[in-house]
Amino acid sequence: MPEITINLAEGRTEAQKTAIMRDISASLVKHLGVDPEAVVIQINEAPPPNKMKGGMTFVERKAAGK
Amino acid sequence: MPEITINLAEGRTEAQKTAIMRDISASLVKHLGVDPEAVVIQINEAPPPNKMKGGMTFVERKAAGK
Amino acid sequence: MPEITINLAEGRTEAQKTAIMRDISASLVKHLGVDPEAVVIQINEAPPPNKMKGGMTFVERKAAGK
Amino acid sequence: MPEITINLAEGRTEAQKTAIMRDISASLVKHLGVDPEAVVIQINEAPPPNKMKGGMTFVERKAAGK
Amino acid sequence: MPEITINLAEGRTEAQKTAIMRDISASLVKHLGVDPEAVVIQINEAPPPNKMKGGMTFVERKAAGK
Amino acid sequence: MPEITINLAEGRTEAQKTAIMRDISASLVKHLGVDPEAVVIQINEAPPPNKMKGGMTFVERKAAGK
Repeated sequence: MPEITINLAEGRTEAQKTAIMRDISASLVKHLGVDPEAVVIQINEAPPPNKMKGGMTFVERKAAGK
Repeated sequence: MPEITINLAEGRTEAQKTAIMRDISASLVKHLGVDPEAVVIQINEAPPPNKMKGGMTFVERKAAGK
Repeated sequence: MPEITINLAEGRTEAQKTAIMRDISASLVKHLGVDPEAVVIQINEAPPPNKMKGGMTFVERKAAGK
Repeated sequence: MPEITINLAEGRTEAQKTAIMRDISASLVKHLGVDPEAVVIQINEAPPPNKMKGGMTFVERKAAGK
Repeated sequence: MPEITINLAEGRTEAQKTAIMRDISASLVKHLGVDPEAVVIQINEAPPPNKMKGGMTFVERKAAGK
Repeated sequence: MPEITINLAEGRTEAQKTAIMRDISASLVKHLGVDPEAVVIQINEAPPPNKMKGGMTFVERKAAGK
């Protein structure tokens, strides 16, 4: 505790995902005073057909250049 | 905001998934008065061994004809 | 199944929340062919200090007129 | 890790909630071989207007005797 | 209802996952008095680069022998 | 997108919660290259009887001085 779940569209590199999780972990340790081992983060990635924003799936957004 | 997460057993077509996300997006824009770009929906799909209902995994439910 | 979780800032009326959940429920029954009793929806509401968008909490967004 | 989130309608006693979390914790330690301190469980409770099943909110379900 | 979501690092066997979901299902039926069909459980598995604990991804934890 | 959900035991100050959400937002903008408005974070807080770690509820952990 605390537990962080990130909903993310597929396509980020392992380096990008590691970087954000490290920042989040460090921030929670710093501001909440918790033990680093207590901070658990999971990224749930969705393929493009499984995510929508603005009424368009991420398949449609890519096709539309968004 | 708002953010919608859908837990779903694998096996739906892309057309089915797109249809429900479009309906959800349209309903939230209509009833909550939010900007369409503010509505984000993600489907987290589970393979049959990773989901249970009624005390049976979805592997067992299929085998039982449910 | 399917199970839907909605992350929402506090402040919507009961009528608004009922309306979106009814639409979501009806859409899933229609497009996925599931039994209505199988569709479960929960809204997790956050008070303004517990939600952030665009780098501002919903306390800050209200103060800024957003 | 693992992290368990339970979506629950309001109305259970503290004893009921403690009992299910203890069982879940014990089961994960037993079957996954993880350290007890690694198992974290959170119950997110929804008031009756924030939850729907079978196309009816839990306000409506109570009124209908379900 | 209730709906349980489990965030888990990849690598458990189907037997392990079935065992914990059966225990959870049985516990909720016993302590909450709900119908077995009302208990739905989904495991969202993360590959090692998508999960972090103690400031290290599960790729790094394995390399470090944790 | 991305959407971040944080499961947290009650008891943090508004300043603490704002600080971690600002750090998370800034990190995602920096490392993923997304628009700040696209980053949405919600903290779902649990009262002590609704959270367990190490087989003890947060009521029991406090009583035990953890």
